[in-house]
Amino acid sequence: MLKNKRMKTLFYTICLCLTLSASATAQEGAIFSKGEKAVNVHHVGSVWLKELNVADSIFNYSTAVAIFDANARLDWHKHPGGQILLIIEGTGYYQEKGKPRQTVKKGDVIKCLPDVEHWHGATATSGFTYIATTPTEKGKTIWLQKVTDAEYGISK
Amino acid sequence: MLKNKRMKTLFYTICLCLTLSASATAQEGAIFSKGEKAVNVHHVGSVWLKELNVADSIFNYSTAVAIFDANARLDWHKHPGGQILLIIEGTGYYQEKGKPRQTVKKGDVIKCLPDVEHWHGATATSGFTYIATTPTEKGKTIWLQKVTDAEYGISK
Repeated sequence: MLKNKRMKTLFYTICLCLTLSASATAQEGAIFSKGEKAVNVHHVGSVWLKELNVADSIFNYSTAVAIFDANARLDWHKHPGGQILLIIEGTGYYQEKGKPRQTVKKGDVIKCLPDVEHWHGATATSGFTYIATTPTEKGKTIWLQKVTDAEYGISK
Repeated sequence: MLKNKRMKTLFYTICLCLTLSASATAQEGAIFSKGEKAVNVHHVGSVWLKELNVADSIFNYSTAVAIFDANARLDWHKHPGGQILLIIEGTGYYQEKGKPRQTVKKGDVIKCLPDVEHWHGATATSGFTYIATTPTEKGKTIWLQKVTDAEYGISK
């Protein structure tokens, strides 16, 4: 099929463009470098956490970026000072106690009030990334029970 | 050259893939929709501002996204409570009084302490976007003088 030399050249040039384009797309996706891979104490799956600014007497909220692979989710937990999540990539879940699980996506802003029990994580098929600002004067995170398969949406 | 029907099909399929890929790349760039175009009172050029969360008694800092076209810059100003900037797209400038102008880019985190006079803006050739968290209990922004051409880097 590609015996014609000109056609071969054209074909390989186009393949190269496709590859470069895909590569550029992948590079554009990551705003912040992955931080430390979090040890699986309070979550399931792969999560990377990077502290962008530690709370102090001037900025009384921590600022961090969290990257979740598909299927990763935090355990139920709550923040004494509340938390704001800015979803900057992908699709995930957010659920508060007593309310249905919500699907959240890039561009969404979630405001979690103090002491509201909740969990968040990637979906089973898509990773996600968010920036979290968390007022810490009253403490940062109180961890609770694991998210059940039914809550996460895994049918048996 | 493309008289062969099979080659024509292959060629057009590849062109379609290239187009879709470029389109996906463009869509991926914008995390938050542009807010309101800011009236040019305290800045030069085109700036769009979107409040993601208004400060209140629980979260005592405002959270906003600002999008600057190339050449746009804020006037010199200061924040009584300080400000944190998370650069999420492009390249820009940040300068504090008495210090050299810095080039800042996607992935950078800038912590501006309370009452430090500073300015920030896009470069002459690249727009940029940042998320700003600004403690507001002591007031939000005090505007000062315009950035001079020399400060911005415009040579005559």
